[in-house]
Amino acid sequence: MRMFDLIRKKRDGGILRPAEIRWFIEGVTKGTIPDYQVSALLMAIYYKGMNLEETKELTFAIRDSGERLDFSAVRGIRADKHSTGGVGDKTSLIVVPVVASFGVKVAKISGRGLGHTGGTIDKLESIPGFRTDIPEEDFLRNVNEIGLSIIGQTHEIAPADKKLYALRDVTATIDSLPLIVSSIMGKKLAADDDVIVLDVKTGSGAFMKTRRDSRKLAEAMVDIGKAAGKRVTALITDMDRPLGSAVGNAIEVIESIETLKGRGPKDLTDLCAALSSEILYLYGKGESLEQCEDMARDAIRSGRALALFGEMIRAQGGNPEVLWDYSLFGTAPVTAEVCAETDGYIAGMDTEGIGRASLALGAGRNTLDDVIDNTAGILLLKKTGARVRRGDVIAKLFTSDPQKVDQARDILIRSVVYTEKAPRKKPLVLDRIS
Amino acid sequence: MRMFDLIRKKRDGGILRPAEIRWFIEGVTKGTIPDYQVSALLMAIYYKGMNLEETKELTFAIRDSGERLDFSAVRGIRADKHSTGGVGDKTSLIVVPVVASFGVKVAKISGRGLGHTGGTIDKLESIPGFRTDIPEEDFLRNVNEIGLSIIGQTHEIAPADKKLYALRDVTATIDSLPLIVSSIMGKKLAADDDVIVLDVKTGSGAFMKTRRDSRKLAEAMVDIGKAAGKRVTALITDMDRPLGSAVGNAIEVIESIETLKGRGPKDLTDLCAALSSEILYLYGKGESLEQCEDMARDAIRSGRALALFGEMIRAQGGNPEVLWDYSLFGTAPVTAEVCAETDGYIAGMDTEGIGRASLALGAGRNTLDDVIDNTAGILLLKKTGARVRRGDVIAKLFTSDPQKVDQARDILIRSVVYTEKAPRKKPLVLDRIS
Repeated sequence: MRMFDLIRKKRDGGILRPAEIRWFIEGVTKGTIPDYQVSALLMAIYYKGMNLEETKELTFAIRDSGERLDFSAVRGIRADKHSTGGVGDKTSLIVVPVVASFGVKVAKISGRGLGHTGGTIDKLESIPGFRTDIPEEDFLRNVNEIGLSIIGQTHEIAPADKKLYALRDVTATIDSLPLIVSSIMGKKLAADDDVIVLDVKTGSGAFMKTRRDSRKLAEAMVDIGKAAGKRVTALITDMDRPLGSAVGNAIEVIESIETLKGRGPKDLTDLCAALSSEILYLYGKGESLEQCEDMARDAIRSGRALALFGEMIRAQGGNPEVLWDYSLFGTAPVTAEVCAETDGYIAGMDTEGIGRASLALGAGRNTLDDVIDNTAGILLLKKTGARVRRGDVIAKLFTSDPQKVDQARDILIRSVVYTEKAPRKKPLVLDRIS
Repeated sequence: MRMFDLIRKKRDGGILRPAEIRWFIEGVTKGTIPDYQVSALLMAIYYKGMNLEETKELTFAIRDSGERLDFSAVRGIRADKHSTGGVGDKTSLIVVPVVASFGVKVAKISGRGLGHTGGTIDKLESIPGFRTDIPEEDFLRNVNEIGLSIIGQTHEIAPADKKLYALRDVTATIDSLPLIVSSIMGKKLAADDDVIVLDVKTGSGAFMKTRRDSRKLAEAMVDIGKAAGKRVTALITDMDRPLGSAVGNAIEVIESIETLKGRGPKDLTDLCAALSSEILYLYGKGESLEQCEDMARDAIRSGRALALFGEMIRAQGGNPEVLWDYSLFGTAPVTAEVCAETDGYIAGMDTEGIGRASLALGAGRNTLDDVIDNTAGILLLKKTGARVRRGDVIAKLFTSDPQKVDQARDILIRSVVYTEKAPRKKPLVLDRIS
């Protein structure tokens, strides 16, 4: 097989055969195909796309490019949720203990990644003492004994994706449906779960800016997950606004704890109930989605989910006192306020802009070597739909570096749009693919 | 400037600014832009094209990426012809002495290149003693004294093209109009000529397979040549059949000498007269193209062009006796015949196939390190339109390696198509762009 022929075929809109796709991913993994040929093929895929069969084969080849995890030591059905990533998205911290409280086993491998805030792993590490690098046997034992554990990536999962993503990132080939699908699902399917619920974000703070593209992405991911023998559902949820009020690391953990106490923001609570309900329903825990959602809300109301979250913290070396004493997270030395520029209603917030403001405060990473400032972040006091008067405090900024405040405030101010009339309300869950 | 932004802009169909194109070519030349980003941009250009302004800027940037030749020591207007390359194309060997016989100065830098046969330089080197690496001062003195000289590339002309071409060759991005135009003209304009006549081949043995694409290519090259201050004309000529009867190296030189003696094949003689006529007309040597063509044919009839070819051979260390004793070229140790498979007419020949048969015999190069077999090649005894009987010899094969005969014969036999009725004749010069 020759890489030239694969490039030319796809360039002309041809369909790559399974053996060709496998050969390509093997070459990427081993490094035997030069990067300049890989990037030429990626650009051809950007323009010509891939059909479902090609995307599926690409996904499975990426999944098989490294080690596949073995969770067979876990007794019971394993479930996971995955979000395509948004601003203020801390749902994993809430959904995992909620569903675990019904006996669902959650052995979750999470990432750090780059972006506006840290990943789930970074957020958890803002809990004093919490270890995300416990040995695999402890991880699996925790899942068996208390029902849940979240750790960072230990094995070399889907190394082909790592290489492809690095190339896509510098050759403007990120925004390609088959490449996005295979990247996400290739990694996800390398884990050993039975049930997967996908939270596909749409809007200004998401990968996919339009609902149509998000639907296509969700459909492809669900199809491929099912082809791999999983039970899968996807929700398409709104990212034209940040989720909840907290954007950062420690600040998001605190908001998650508040939500587990039943005092969280409505949008975050509702989305977590919906996602939990989907997992419980796929797991066979209830007769209907409505019943499963009631169960999820009850796990919060009763305090069972919060208690489980505390058990996980303790099992992974963290101090469970943080549930009751937020000062243990430490305090940002610098705080600043952002005020409304005019009277009226907040018509919308550029979620992407709020993410960039969070990054500017030190809550995220620009490069993998950057150190995250755990206490940095943004607390939104007013969100889309809120009525404000000029001078009202709409957000608080937290950081360790006073020099970062001005840039972050500027970005945030430019992200808020005001109107005279109250904007129409939009549902948070826009679509469901199963 | 960031390469990522250029790729994304072109990916989305945007127009690159002159400064961006200059920056890109500078980065390619210096090696500061990684190949994987270059190839991603090449593929985006493949799909989205470039407008004339972009193509012009790309051409000029390639031209300026290395040394530009200085022919100012030559007294008089300098002219050159350039062919986009075909099978059996030995027109340079004939046109150069024809036009030089009217005082046109031809300081020609030719290539070796890869392909079915050697380049002009390789063909000339089949003349015993002929040196294509004479010092530049001897080269320019020859042009002043006898009017013509042909040598190989000495300076590093358009190094950006070399790098781009190498990448295009392995990423399926050769067939892109702006990339072809800028590659050919970038190199051509680095030479110091006043008059350029382009022979744009079209058909199965050419870069451009359709007349429409060939016309577009010719128009762009003429426009850009004029923008660089040159007098330029392009002829679009048929490559659905090999040019002349000889395909190889020594064998093509012999056919050229025969043509200069007025005994050449009609198609080759006609094309050389047409190309010479264009040069003489642009040079201002005649009132009309018809008059210039008569002059060209007279230069052959009178023997003046042949004499000049002999002078060039002598001036570059070759043995001019070859004009009268072809045995001085040496003889291929192995010859074989190819016979007609059926009664009828030869309806067509796959020119590309004949080229591959020539390569199989050892007349061309697969890689730059291959050594050319000077005496290898093909002599076509019957061409398109000829009436044949089954068993008639239609071609002779020459090689040094008896093991190469079978493969070459197979390729050649498959390249010939027969019909019962005589095929319609097609003109050789299809179009003219000026």
